[in-house]
Amino acid sequence: MPASVCVVGSVALDSIQTPSGKAMEVLGGSCSYFAVAASLFAPVNMVAVVGRDFPAREREFLAGRGINLTGVEEVDGRTFRWTGRYHEDMNIRDTLDLQLNVFADFAPRLPESYRDSTLVFLANIQPRLQNEVLAQLRAVELVGADTIDHWIKEQRADLEALLAKVDILSINDAEAMLLSGAANIVTAARRILAMGPKTLLVKRGEYGALQFAANDVFAVPAFPLERVVDPTGAGDCFAGGLFGSLAAAGALDRKTLRRAIVYGSVLASFAVEDFGLNRLRSLGRAEVDTRYRQFMALTDFHS
Amino acid sequence: MPASVCVVGSVALDSIQTPSGKAMEVLGGSCSYFAVAASLFAPVNMVAVVGRDFPAREREFLAGRGINLTGVEEVDGRTFRWTGRYHEDMNIRDTLDLQLNVFADFAPRLPESYRDSTLVFLANIQPRLQNEVLAQLRAVELVGADTIDHWIKEQRADLEALLAKVDILSINDAEAMLLSGAANIVTAARRILAMGPKTLLVKRGEYGALQFAANDVFAVPAFPLERVVDPTGAGDCFAGGLFGSLAAAGALDRKTLRRAIVYGSVLASFAVEDFGLNRLRSLGRAEVDTRYRQFMALTDFHS
Repeated sequence: MPASVCVVGSVALDSIQTPSGKAMEVLGGSCSYFAVAASLFAPVNMVAVVGRDFPAREREFLAGRGINLTGVEEVDGRTFRWTGRYHEDMNIRDTLDLQLNVFADFAPRLPESYRDSTLVFLANIQPRLQNEVLAQLRAVELVGADTIDHWIKEQRADLEALLAKVDILSINDAEAMLLSGAANIVTAARRILAMGPKTLLVKRGEYGALQFAANDVFAVPAFPLERVVDPTGAGDCFAGGLFGSLAAAGALDRKTLRRAIVYGSVLASFAVEDFGLNRLRSLGRAEVDTRYRQFMALTDFHS
Repeated sequence: MPASVCVVGSVALDSIQTPSGKAMEVLGGSCSYFAVAASLFAPVNMVAVVGRDFPAREREFLAGRGINLTGVEEVDGRTFRWTGRYHEDMNIRDTLDLQLNVFADFAPRLPESYRDSTLVFLANIQPRLQNEVLAQLRAVELVGADTIDHWIKEQRADLEALLAKVDILSINDAEAMLLSGAANIVTAARRILAMGPKTLLVKRGEYGALQFAANDVFAVPAFPLERVVDPTGAGDCFAGGLFGSLAAAGALDRKTLRRAIVYGSVLASFAVEDFGLNRLRSLGRAEVDTRYRQFMALTDFHS
């Protein structure tokens, strides 16, 4: 039985417009995307907050994926809502409406049964809360984290305190530039690694991802897709696939980490094929492994 | 002895400003970049035009790389001049001055000794002239071509006539979108392959390159560099490394083509490390092979 992955982050109901159409009040949030992607590989312990309106069918869907919901607190009020619209160039999106609702007062509390988790992913929430989650873990061996431009600008001190304790930081290229103050991604990576993380993952959307570690760089392209329906959550699915497959592998060597990054890329490539988590609802491990082999064919010139 | 590569294109004297500094009247033009990159691998036959002011030292430099200059005509007038400035984001550049000079009346004539060339690369010039060069070749087996947005917009009919005869088309992502009318690169590739080319290479600058062929896609990242001095000519060096290594390999199978694309990426990565062709002047085959192995390490998760 693989190690389980503990993840803390947001659970939201998203309303999304893209050039392909729209979807109303679909399950979203960094924690949901991560958990569903990771659940293809390993048991997942979720830490999040939802309101009384959180649909029972979504709770059943998550539980049906083997995701432990003991840490998903249901409190009085409405679940976090996000409404956004993507441009023709789907790298650009506008937030049309944001209602934090019960998420505004989120104070993550780990159930006793989670506190011995060895792998934890701190999806995008306030760095202060990410630090508080870490403090509740007794036996953590691998800490992953994500963040966004807002926290880099507004909660720098809390974020720096967190980075000193992070093993794998997963952010996009614009965030890496902002965090480091560098205009070049290699310089940015060098500076960020000096802040604490042993590994930096730079997500570059349709261009793939770069992994930087001391004296090692790994590049993987995104899977070329003819139809991208909704990019929401792709980065969280990337992290979920990565940490899920690391938990399943039970190792952390260079080769295992590279394979995990490719599994992350596989999950991200499926995530964007439909709105919200729709594509991942029907996704099975056999399809994942088929696309992993397609990634091998896509990039192979070594043999 | 490997097959030789025949290349037709521009030879220019470029004045370039980038965030790293500036260089005045340095050797440039698509034909120069391609020829110098290809000369690391195979004999090159150049077809171009220069003015009476073309520096003897540049002629000697090219000849010293084993490049055949029989087809480089020197005519009355001044050599093509280009002056450009790159922004902090080096994907954006402004042309400050353009003097076609002798290039305005370029009518490429292949010396008799070139007409049995089996590999030809039609670097960026008017599609009408690219067609005229092809018509002068008697035994061509592999036709490569590049073009730019200007010809896609202004000389579409001549370009389409050319594409029907091209084996490998090498253009950037914006040009692929413009040529195909597609907003998605996979759709763009499908449409462009239907126009004639058996292989489409999509150059994506710092994000690398994609190769599309019937039922086959290959992706290679760009080499992550901490210091990019001048991106001018990177695409031509990519094509030069690719065609040079294909000529040297004497084969065209899938594996050889993929390796050639990586050699192209290697040459492009060196080209941007200094102004103009400065980095390639001192570049030797051992350094090329070292970076090729670095590309293998950069992308390997297959073993």
